[in-house]
Amino acid sequence: MSDSQHIAVIGAGAFGTALAAVVAQTGRAQAVLIGRDASVIADLAAIRVHEGALPGIRLPDALVFSARAKDLEGADIVLFAMPSQAQVAAAETYGPYLKPCVPVVICAKGIERQTSRLLTEVLEAALPGHPVAMLSGPGFAADIAKGLPTAMAIAAKELSLAEQLAKAISGQTFRLYASDDRIGVQLGGALKNVLAIACGIVEGMGLGDSARAALIARGLAEMSRLVDAMGGRGDTVRGLSGLGDLVLTATSHQSRNLRFGIALGQGEPIAAQHGALVEGAFAAAVAARLAESHQIEMPITQAVAAIIDGSLDIPTAITQLMSRPITTE
Amino acid sequence: MSDSQHIAVIGAGAFGTALAAVVAQTGRAQAVLIGRDASVIADLAAIRVHEGALPGIRLPDALVFSARAKDLEGADIVLFAMPSQAQVAAAETYGPYLKPCVPVVICAKGIERQTSRLLTEVLEAALPGHPVAMLSGPGFAADIAKGLPTAMAIAAKELSLAEQLAKAISGQTFRLYASDDRIGVQLGGALKNVLAIACGIVEGMGLGDSARAALIARGLAEMSRLVDAMGGRGDTVRGLSGLGDLVLTATSHQSRNLRFGIALGQGEPIAAQHGALVEGAFAAAVAARLAESHQIEMPITQAVAAIIDGSLDIPTAITQLMSRPITTE
Repeated sequence: MSDSQHIAVIGAGAFGTALAAVVAQTGRAQAVLIGRDASVIADLAAIRVHEGALPGIRLPDALVFSARAKDLEGADIVLFAMPSQAQVAAAETYGPYLKPCVPVVICAKGIERQTSRLLTEVLEAALPGHPVAMLSGPGFAADIAKGLPTAMAIAAKELSLAEQLAKAISGQTFRLYASDDRIGVQLGGALKNVLAIACGIVEGMGLGDSARAALIARGLAEMSRLVDAMGGRGDTVRGLSGLGDLVLTATSHQSRNLRFGIALGQGEPIAAQHGALVEGAFAAAVAARLAESHQIEMPITQAVAAIIDGSLDIPTAITQLMSRPITTE
Repeated sequence: MSDSQHIAVIGAGAFGTALAAVVAQTGRAQAVLIGRDASVIADLAAIRVHEGALPGIRLPDALVFSARAKDLEGADIVLFAMPSQAQVAAAETYGPYLKPCVPVVICAKGIERQTSRLLTEVLEAALPGHPVAMLSGPGFAADIAKGLPTAMAIAAKELSLAEQLAKAISGQTFRLYASDDRIGVQLGGALKNVLAIACGIVEGMGLGDSARAALIARGLAEMSRLVDAMGGRGDTVRGLSGLGDLVLTATSHQSRNLRFGIALGQGEPIAAQHGALVEGAFAAAVAARLAESHQIEMPITQAVAAIIDGSLDIPTAITQLMSRPITTE
């Protein structure tokens, strides 16, 4: 990849716009932000502020906006920054416009709902010939777009590609750390929402900061076990993805998963909370099934899944968790 | 160790009192809390509330209070719950009253200031013949004493001893996880204060939640490297000790280290903050020296140490951290 590479970001929501902004800001690459809604794109080009997603944040002059898939044709790297459940449809729409072998970077967290597959598997199947990377970790779009210091992880099958991508996308205030563990990086992003729900329950019940800290530490331990069992490296989820992301989610109240957990902890009935719409509620069920099929213990995840499906009440769950046999860390 | 064992806690501050309370609550052991201030002990025995340290929290009826070192003579396990810099003096005072070979559990975080040695080394030297264990992790005394769910780590040289101690001390709401990595468990407790200062700086400067989350993740990565270099296991500090403890410290405003960092980030001069009195300020200098002698990179720790000793200003530190070469996780 040369210094004058073209980087395209598809998805003009908050996160995609923020990523495109930092890439444009580096001055090293030509950045184009591609959105499907022509009126949003026209507004962005006219006022260079995304009032809907990133109000008040001025976007760099160097950033180009487009609503035409055809403008992907020059891209050397393409970031897929639409929600996780929209990634496949985007691959179908935009795939035909990609140059052969251009790396595609998934910038979304979650597991495909219809199939319970990892997003990298889904996109590899949808975009044959394209190396698929995964960008994940703790980064609020507004923090990234404002130029506050942020760091995330980027994983590719080949570490050398991950390093190239990290160098291409990182800027003065936005740092990417390279990894070759795509399984760990994406499970960290998908499963932290389960623990965010658990943290919310603890908070909603008023169990205290110590309980939340213990939950985060033990929750990451069980997340590590699943990653190991699925062929990734457990350590990965105790880095930026997983740990860093969970700290961000569990300690700021912007997360729907956390708020869902708080409502549960305060005794609100689940139906009223539309649990099915919360990413972590879905991920809990998937992770509990995965734990069972890989025969590993994930007591916190399994408790969250059982609370959400109505088979376990919260006080019983806590008593069970606290009365498990004493074990090693 | 039999079911009717005697457990003594020395140190009637908040943490020691809370530990003695949970041990007494289990009903499995006879618990005695030993303090050096006879009037505090007399008050505790009379009203069963530690108004100075744990106001409003009723202590269990089964808990015995004593100001006499002689009451250690029946103890099968002894917890040293005085501040880190008072551990050696306590060993000298109370050591002669311990039964031979009784395990001693350090319940303090930090590094001995005079010698920069780990507390387990210090106590092993001061109490020959006694196995020395280390209890550390995320637990506010008030949360423990109130019976809110808490979990911490306990490490001994032999895992079997750590497991015995974990079973003896754990109760319905207070869980200990056993480890044989004393170096990791205690470095996690000592060094999290350095990162708490760094988190405070980030907060004081208004750099955002994403920056703090990245700092925690990357800070733990460098803490792991030091633990590995010193003969422990890097993973340990991404568990209850280290990670769990840091999450607790960095996200609640009870920590002096965090508040010290916030003041630094807001531009207050260091002298006015009495940096030398803050545990993490001392630990930063020690850890920076250890990083140098073990030839490992600890950029965040080294930056904190340099900010505190006045050789680096905060904006430059941040620019340096963000412009380091792109690397792997």
